[in-house]
Amino acid sequence: MKTKIAENIPGYTYGQSGVAKSPINTDELKLLKQSVGMTEEDERYLRVAGEVLSDRTEELVGRWRTVIAAHPHLARYSKRLDGQADPHYSQNSGLRFQQWILDTCLRPYDQDWLNYQQEIALRHTSVKKNKTDGVESIGYIPLRYVVTFTAVINDAHILKPLLAAKGHSAEEVDRMHQAWCKSVQLQIALWAEPYTDTKIAPNEW
Amino acid sequence: MKTKIAENIPGYTYGQSGVAKSPINTDELKLLKQSVGMTEEDERYLRVAGEVLSDRTEELVGRWRTVIAAHPHLARYSKRLDGQADPHYSQNSGLRFQQWILDTCLRPYDQDWLNYQQEIALRHTSVKKNKTDGVESIGYIPLRYVVTFTAVINDAHILKPLLAAKGHSAEEVDRMHQAWCKSVQLQIALWAEPYTDTKIAPNEW
Repeated sequence: MKTKIAENIPGYTYGQSGVAKSPINTDELKLLKQSVGMTEEDERYLRVAGEVLSDRTEELVGRWRTVIAAHPHLARYSKRLDGQADPHYSQNSGLRFQQWILDTCLRPYDQDWLNYQQEIALRHTSVKKNKTDGVESIGYIPLRYVVTFTAVINDAHILKPLLAAKGHSAEEVDRMHQAWCKSVQLQIALWAEPYTDTKIAPNEW
Repeated sequence: MKTKIAENIPGYTYGQSGVAKSPINTDELKLLKQSVGMTEEDERYLRVAGEVLSDRTEELVGRWRTVIAAHPHLARYSKRLDGQADPHYSQNSGLRFQQWILDTCLRPYDQDWLNYQQEIALRHTSVKKNKTDGVESIGYIPLRYVVTFTAVINDAHILKPLLAAKGHSAEEVDRMHQAWCKSVQLQIALWAEPYTDTKIAPNEW
């Protein structure tokens, strides 16, 4: 099974020394996993989902991007400042988006995973957006669009047909989808951190 | 059909003059509805869900609170500072929690709804937590627990049996559940606002 969607993914720094450092450790992550209700069974079904999706990541990202493209208030964040498409940005971020699917399903949720979540989080904000790919685009994605768009990322109408494509039962597809939704909800919580006001909630967002 | 779970709900200020004012208007709300993919069909299925759940809100809140009670890192936010339960706080917030289910399904998403979302948001934070009920409890709920716990609020294993209890088909129950999840994701985005750093993203969180 494929665990990496391409040999070379520009800007994909998972596990590397230059990556961001998560504000939380794996003990705190355990509490977040409990808060979303993630069980060992969910973790097993995430692995199964990863196996099923491993050669369908391009299609899945394509489906999500079709939704983004249909809404100018979302599409603008991946365009240039003059409103034109940026094929280089789209290509590189698309490869990372595909790899994110596999990492969500197949990576162990350890400190490296937490750190890369923080890297992803920062790349939505003015701290790091556009810098990885050297593009001129809007400087950050408002948190409310990051949060709301994950409803599309979790949309059963998009995800379940792909999860069902290798012959698993409806019950197994349901379990894969549930596990996926829990993981995404956990990740949104992590992605929210750089947006929060640390003076109100130091180390606690 | 019941649209209010009790004649008198302490601290429930929906539509009243003292309620918070949302930082966004209904035009901006339209963009958020698009971002979660909420359609008119979803809105219809939310109404159906409201009809189905209208006399089961106490049971549903009970199920969610069982999950909270099982996790000390979540349960502490509804207890007194000495770690003891506060029946008065629990009772009042429980009634509002029940009413929130019906409001999610049955209220029009207008400026009054937006304003009460902001009121709910502030009641999770140091601005208003504990003040409505005059209790001594921890001063705010970290945003990461607000976000992650919504995975339990959306958990199909808890919600779907209740949605199915009045004889709707599996397809209809699926649609009710999907509409519910979209609404909750939209609400999380609204609840995140008071936690965000307005210096980074003025009026845009």
